[in-house]
Amino acid sequence: MALVVVGGVAAGLSAAARARRIDPHLEITVLEKGPDISYGACGLPYLIEGRVRRPEELVVYTAEYFRKERNITVRTGTRVAAVAHARREVLLAGGERLRYDRLVLATGARCTTLGIAGAAQPHVFTLHTLEDARRLRAFLLDRRPRRAAVVGAGYLGVEAADALRRQGLRVTVYERAQNVLLREDAALTAAVRKQLDTHGVELCCGVNVDSVDALDADLVVLAAGFQPNVELAAEAGIEIGRTGAIRTDDRMETSIRGIFAAGDCTETQHLVTGRPAWIPLGTTANKTGRIAGANAAGARERFAGVAGTSIVGIFGMAFAVTGLSEAQARAEGLSPVAVRIEGRSRPRYYSGVPTTVELVAERSTGRLLGGAVIGEDGAAGRINVIAAALASRMRLDEFEQLDLAYSPPFAPVWDPLLIAAQQLKKAT
Amino acid sequence: MALVVVGGVAAGLSAAARARRIDPHLEITVLEKGPDISYGACGLPYLIEGRVRRPEELVVYTAEYFRKERNITVRTGTRVAAVAHARREVLLAGGERLRYDRLVLATGARCTTLGIAGAAQPHVFTLHTLEDARRLRAFLLDRRPRRAAVVGAGYLGVEAADALRRQGLRVTVYERAQNVLLREDAALTAAVRKQLDTHGVELCCGVNVDSVDALDADLVVLAAGFQPNVELAAEAGIEIGRTGAIRTDDRMETSIRGIFAAGDCTETQHLVTGRPAWIPLGTTANKTGRIAGANAAGARERFAGVAGTSIVGIFGMAFAVTGLSEAQARAEGLSPVAVRIEGRSRPRYYSGVPTTVELVAERSTGRLLGGAVIGEDGAAGRINVIAAALASRMRLDEFEQLDLAYSPPFAPVWDPLLIAAQQLKKAT
Repeated sequence: MALVVVGGVAAGLSAAARARRIDPHLEITVLEKGPDISYGACGLPYLIEGRVRRPEELVVYTAEYFRKERNITVRTGTRVAAVAHARREVLLAGGERLRYDRLVLATGARCTTLGIAGAAQPHVFTLHTLEDARRLRAFLLDRRPRRAAVVGAGYLGVEAADALRRQGLRVTVYERAQNVLLREDAALTAAVRKQLDTHGVELCCGVNVDSVDALDADLVVLAAGFQPNVELAAEAGIEIGRTGAIRTDDRMETSIRGIFAAGDCTETQHLVTGRPAWIPLGTTANKTGRIAGANAAGARERFAGVAGTSIVGIFGMAFAVTGLSEAQARAEGLSPVAVRIEGRSRPRYYSGVPTTVELVAERSTGRLLGGAVIGEDGAAGRINVIAAALASRMRLDEFEQLDLAYSPPFAPVWDPLLIAAQQLKKAT
Repeated sequence: MALVVVGGVAAGLSAAARARRIDPHLEITVLEKGPDISYGACGLPYLIEGRVRRPEELVVYTAEYFRKERNITVRTGTRVAAVAHARREVLLAGGERLRYDRLVLATGARCTTLGIAGAAQPHVFTLHTLEDARRLRAFLLDRRPRRAAVVGAGYLGVEAADALRRQGLRVTVYERAQNVLLREDAALTAAVRKQLDTHGVELCCGVNVDSVDALDADLVVLAAGFQPNVELAAEAGIEIGRTGAIRTDDRMETSIRGIFAAGDCTETQHLVTGRPAWIPLGTTANKTGRIAGANAAGARERFAGVAGTSIVGIFGMAFAVTGLSEAQARAEGLSPVAVRIEGRSRPRYYSGVPTTVELVAERSTGRLLGGAVIGEDGAAGRINVIAAALASRMRLDEFEQLDLAYSPPFAPVWDPLLIAAQQLKKAT
């Protein structure tokens, strides 16, 4: 049995490694079009910032490691041109053909520069691969730019803005939508704007950047228009979902039996809405990769779905979300109630800092639908508690009684999460 | 309608404040035997350490505030001698009688010095009230002791040891049991021992201290033999549970209708075992106080129970637990499996530090039974995720797919919680 995996970053390598555990005799080949594998793509902004010194620090495993320790062949610089499923073959760009019994597509996503004129100029960068980060880092050191423009205020955009500002550049972030972080949440956007503003980064929402040359900047980072790489799948006849990403069942198998997909190129089921969603994140890539790999190797595992939990640090403050915002819940046809409270991360006498908690629940049932946590201390842990509650479809009356840890160095006796739940319960 | 609340710290004041919200016309009187009300008792060690400068910083609300803002009468220095329920009266120590329609007992717990000879000496302290902390603080400053002994390695004991050590004293902690932190968990005890040892505090387990004079110390803190104050309730004919604390139903009503109890003097239902447990903690005191107050004022609210979540900081490292340890689960007649892994709090390239996660699950069903988290970064948030999972009776296969937040400044892509769940799942 031969397993071929297309893509050698998070999802692809998770799939390969897990398939190996399930079946020690499987012949496993990973094909990666770029020069690097297994790197923490989410660490790229910290390479720009200079906190991470060398690109190699972001590499988790080498091709050599996979070959020696896992008996997995990893070929970098190897682009797949087509999938011929009738013959169970992938056709490589150089003309070579590779047979498979099972195929995992982990083709990822890309930052499209579609429609932006002048994107090919040397001072314009994307920040998606190690190679991108190496080039941008070199440009920073060699050319000493003074004025940066970041196109897109998603996670990557604000992280890039933070990193460039810390390098001393003047930074402006342009976002087409009225909201940042891909979330329809005016209060969250206002909080991000305030934090950026405090640290000297300008945020311009509702601005469509058509041309790089219109920007007053000697460095431009394009961090907008993220799209799943589905061309290979689509040309092979695999069904693409309404979100534009590859559709799979909960075993991560595509519409063609024997071909699985995982990671940023696939859609997943949203735990709260029960509908397909495309929320490309590293955690989901690793989880769906594992499951695709396991099932491709003969196991039967299913993916539970995503809550859309994410977090970003902007100049030391965390902005974390999970599930649906109030506006998103309404757009999904639900009848939400929401509350936003400001508590403290710990008791005042133990250096507690302000912590904002937003909770969204269904009016009729009190079921939690989502939340947001903003603060400099403990936001990750708190958003994860909400995420766990979403996974078990918890109601507010259950959530408000959670037995959360209390001790002055860590939390106040009434955690902001519980205060928010108490207040929101009154509204249901 | 008159509500009388016996006890003016966490549970008692939560009850009074909540009753007022439910019924604006209720006549509410809080009787507190000590001189202070509404203080954060868990902050006392930080007063000893010197991090909290003045005892007043620990006071959340004053009697004056309750009188003016909540129309609640608070009488300090007022000891209740007896409850005469047939006449609906409490008898005060001075002879005065006070009528009630509803009564809330929030009599708390105490550190018994029973059986320890020499406990009345001036260099021997407990650390339970603001007054205790004031006296101990004054003794430290006036007498400059060099050598401290702490009796008891529960939460308060290790916090006191940490605080005294930071004041420059040589500190030895004596514990009667083989385990610390009131948890039958050898690995947790070993980790605490190592942390204490690293910071120059000696831990002696399995040592029964019969006499203060046997200790080579010029300062002794007694932090053992915690007991619920149930005498008042027992003499009034209220049923005491098997744990030795006051038994209530899930509305916090005692065996006598119209008399409620809350906080450290009461037992609660354990979420995992479904059995009564006595786990006196500030969070539970506040929660049960709220519910007792609400129901005493005519509402119908129920308490879900406790998971026994707690956390303690020892020289900057957090030791957090929830639910049952493997040994405790076995003692409860369950058939547990457990795993202990060491992960990192964040990616290595982003200053991640070691984080130990222990998970315990039921072998047959995979249901989570408990866990522990040890580390210097993010332990509170992680134990709370386990606590939330226990509240919804989550299984390992659900837990391992939790959509937890990932970003390098906050967490690794595979959170230690998920790694532990993956590993433990193999054993079920």
